[in-house]
Amino acid sequence: MTIRTLVWGENVHEQTSKVVADLYPEGMHTQIARLISADQNVSVTTTTLQAPEHGLTEAVLAETDVLVWWGHKAHAEVDDRVVERVMQHVWQGMGLIVLHSGHYAKIFKRLMGTPCGLTWREAGERERLWVVNPRHPIAAGLPQYFELENEEMYGEPFAVPEPLETVFISWFQGGEVFRSGVTYRRGAGNIFYFRPGHETYPTYHDETVGKVLRNAVNWAHNPQGRNLAADDAPNRPVGEAIEPIEERGPKLHQDGEAGYR
Amino acid sequence: MTIRTLVWGENVHEQTSKVVADLYPEGMHTQIARLISADQNVSVTTTTLQAPEHGLTEAVLAETDVLVWWGHKAHAEVDDRVVERVMQHVWQGMGLIVLHSGHYAKIFKRLMGTPCGLTWREAGERERLWVVNPRHPIAAGLPQYFELENEEMYGEPFAVPEPLETVFISWFQGGEVFRSGVTYRRGAGNIFYFRPGHETYPTYHDETVGKVLRNAVNWAHNPQGRNLAADDAPNRPVGEAIEPIEERGPKLHQDGEAGYR
Amino acid sequence: MTIRTLVWGENVHEQTSKVVADLYPEGMHTQIARLISADQNVSVTTTTLQAPEHGLTEAVLAETDVLVWWGHKAHAEVDDRVVERVMQHVWQGMGLIVLHSGHYAKIFKRLMGTPCGLTWREAGERERLWVVNPRHPIAAGLPQYFELENEEMYGEPFAVPEPLETVFISWFQGGEVFRSGVTYRRGAGNIFYFRPGHETYPTYHDETVGKVLRNAVNWAHNPQGRNLAADDAPNRPVGEAIEPIEERGPKLHQDGEAGYR
Amino acid sequence: MTIRTLVWGENVHEQTSKVVADLYPEGMHTQIARLISADQNVSVTTTTLQAPEHGLTEAVLAETDVLVWWGHKAHAEVDDRVVERVMQHVWQGMGLIVLHSGHYAKIFKRLMGTPCGLTWREAGERERLWVVNPRHPIAAGLPQYFELENEEMYGEPFAVPEPLETVFISWFQGGEVFRSGVTYRRGAGNIFYFRPGHETYPTYHDETVGKVLRNAVNWAHNPQGRNLAADDAPNRPVGEAIEPIEERGPKLHQDGEAGYR
Repeated sequence: MTIRTLVWGENVHEQTSKVVADLYPEGMHTQIARLISADQNVSVTTTTLQAPEHGLTEAVLAETDVLVWWGHKAHAEVDDRVVERVMQHVWQGMGLIVLHSGHYAKIFKRLMGTPCGLTWREAGERERLWVVNPRHPIAAGLPQYFELENEEMYGEPFAVPEPLETVFISWFQGGEVFRSGVTYRRGAGNIFYFRPGHETYPTYHDETVGKVLRNAVNWAHNPQGRNLAADDAPNRPVGEAIEPIEERGPKLHQDGEAGYR
Repeated sequence: MTIRTLVWGENVHEQTSKVVADLYPEGMHTQIARLISADQNVSVTTTTLQAPEHGLTEAVLAETDVLVWWGHKAHAEVDDRVVERVMQHVWQGMGLIVLHSGHYAKIFKRLMGTPCGLTWREAGERERLWVVNPRHPIAAGLPQYFELENEEMYGEPFAVPEPLETVFISWFQGGEVFRSGVTYRRGAGNIFYFRPGHETYPTYHDETVGKVLRNAVNWAHNPQGRNLAADDAPNRPVGEAIEPIEERGPKLHQDGEAGYR
Repeated sequence: MTIRTLVWGENVHEQTSKVVADLYPEGMHTQIARLISADQNVSVTTTTLQAPEHGLTEAVLAETDVLVWWGHKAHAEVDDRVVERVMQHVWQGMGLIVLHSGHYAKIFKRLMGTPCGLTWREAGERERLWVVNPRHPIAAGLPQYFELENEEMYGEPFAVPEPLETVFISWFQGGEVFRSGVTYRRGAGNIFYFRPGHETYPTYHDETVGKVLRNAVNWAHNPQGRNLAADDAPNRPVGEAIEPIEERGPKLHQDGEAGYR
Repeated sequence: MTIRTLVWGENVHEQTSKVVADLYPEGMHTQIARLISADQNVSVTTTTLQAPEHGLTEAVLAETDVLVWWGHKAHAEVDDRVVERVMQHVWQGMGLIVLHSGHYAKIFKRLMGTPCGLTWREAGERERLWVVNPRHPIAAGLPQYFELENEEMYGEPFAVPEPLETVFISWFQGGEVFRSGVTYRRGAGNIFYFRPGHETYPTYHDETVGKVLRNAVNWAHNPQGRNLAADDAPNRPVGEAIEPIEERGPKLHQDGEAGYR
């Protein structure tokens, strides 16, 4: 089964910074998509902030198995209605992979329910990612650790909920640590946050990073299809109770009515 | 140390339903506060939706250790700015106890990042709450199980994240089960969801329910005071790195600048 | 890739109880294997307590991707050395599915580190298993709930660690609840406990139970192969430190020596 | 309420190594106890491997609220019956704090159900412990991070189950990271593993380490007293079912009999 993956790129730095444009002449999203498409079982498309509805229409999301998100400077420009729509799809079973500065993307903050803050430093220092959960599907085929010679530092405390599982923890040259690969489930949706990917460094030209992304897409994919009832709250009428009961006491609601939201 | 507890009541059904008004003539919030105030180490006040800013001003929240929330019919009337403010205080360390239909309160949905739905039936049926985590502080002094002869049914699936710990699971006469007591941490804030409490039944006149509420207030209380840095994302200038490093490669940001949100 | 699954049966009740022998004339393990083998991607073999080394030699385990365990009366007869061996294989990545009374199997208690007790009643009462985690791989293709008209009751508290994820919760006719499907990871091994399966009832002739077992085998399978370093604690000599450091202070150990166990 | 704390020391290196004896002339356990006893609400005693039954008789454990464990060279000399006894007390509600090389103590491995391995290097290098869970009770009053100028390195992967909560993560000078403060619950017992404490360095003369130990003792303490039913598996006779049921189908057991273990 082909995993239909959509890479969403903010695509702002590429237009305003020569450094970024030189590293990613076709946009970061294009290069991220290229890394993922090395997996024969994945079909990859891209879209950006600038597309109508940020390229995340109901029709597009309905055909997306896994969404990959890179954003940074323009988090605030993402329309709240689109964020709500993406969140519904995650709840229904769409996988979501959030990259680097996407820790502050509206969609990630909404799904976490926490501030999602961290400390940071842009010094091109060395990052070493340790696999703390060997044989986790996202770590398949990786060595004990891998390095990125130039990366932005993100330091703890990372203000996220306790993860379902922690896959990577980073060591930084300047003295910090960071939980760089963490998983969550929200409704039927699998979520993976992966730390590396600062726009001024060639992180998405790194083959190990590509391996992680491909593993993550495969892990996040839920082959069961959407759970369209994910956001329902159905009333079960008394007469249809599984075990026979008789109604007792006063009540406010009528059988089958919708509850209050 | 006295735990300053604030009980927030929606206070709508009490004004519109004779059944509810007869059960809770001073409002549900007043009776919930009465149960909690049986703990000598807790001071309890109340407020309602109808107060200015729903009674949840910055000044009030700053003096609140634990907030208890009962809402149902008027979730949509709670001002989004107040929700955001309450969320900030939870992240900073204010405890939050969400009761019954509060599963659909904006504040709970924001903190969970999930739909928070469930199935339901209003038939006055028997609920039996089993303690699945004996010696958890919230279950202190409780028997193996306790019963509420008349309650609204809430049934699984309960669309919340996997809890930090599950304390109670309910059996319902009509055939359903429900995770009725679950804990979470969001930032520095401890959160407890407790299922019982339908407005047309005398649940908040039940002494065991009172015991659970008092236990929960004590558990949720974080005596360390607010973490005012909970929502920060400070830049660490290169020159102030803990381990000496030298700046390498291109950069976008200036030392000490605020990151993008 | 074919998932090599081994069903281990205690095979004692089948020899001593006419009821059990009539229900499972070829042994419970044989019928469990039959249910699982309906999955084309799985190859299934069986073995029993009575085989040399209980059929769980190093050679057999090395060729096993997922082990399914049914035991009850003879937990104490399982050799501790075999338990240790199975545990090593789980740590290295072999999946383990523990059924029903296997909650008290030595291997399960060793992997959980808890008493694994529960309350119980053998009355042939109705059990209804609710899916609390829709779209979890183990719940794939299942309805909202399914029933077993005659089962032994297991009641909370179930003395296990907080699960990684809870998939099923059972409702019992006599008034109890139970977390009937729970997942764990221990080392590289995925573990699933599934409650139903009392020997005097036709549970393993139920098609939905078969569906759960097949889903569980697929979920527990770790295609990455064994992590032979799972139980290692290697010394990293100072001279081979990733970042150059110089030795400081007194020391007890020599470079490369084995630590104390 | 006074928290009765017992510090257990292996007390072997102190007898055989001049370095250790000079650092801890009264034994490491004595110095650890001194740090903890700075808390007015805690009463502290000590015992060692060499005492009869390692000083961990049933009578002693029954009067212990929190047990602190330091062991290294002589893990194998700890009697399995004593390990079993300590485990029972943890399940019943005794807190347990495991220090440094205690990751390989029999009691820790039994409670975790995992190999508990790690990588290591004895080079007196710098360790920096980051607080990743601000306002967790064990981090109360701590700065963002604290340093130990000379420590043994422990590196990931740390072969433990996914923690209930992660409190500290360490950065090491030589390039590794480690989850240095992790919490678990097993039965009614709270467990905290704290990494630092190599015998050849003055770690237990560090005031911040003392603060962590005192916080941990307070966190691990369960004031509810022992749950003596922690390891039970009671039969509920059909006639005493909470909801009236009638016995159906064949059965193996008699009412009230003990199940198989």
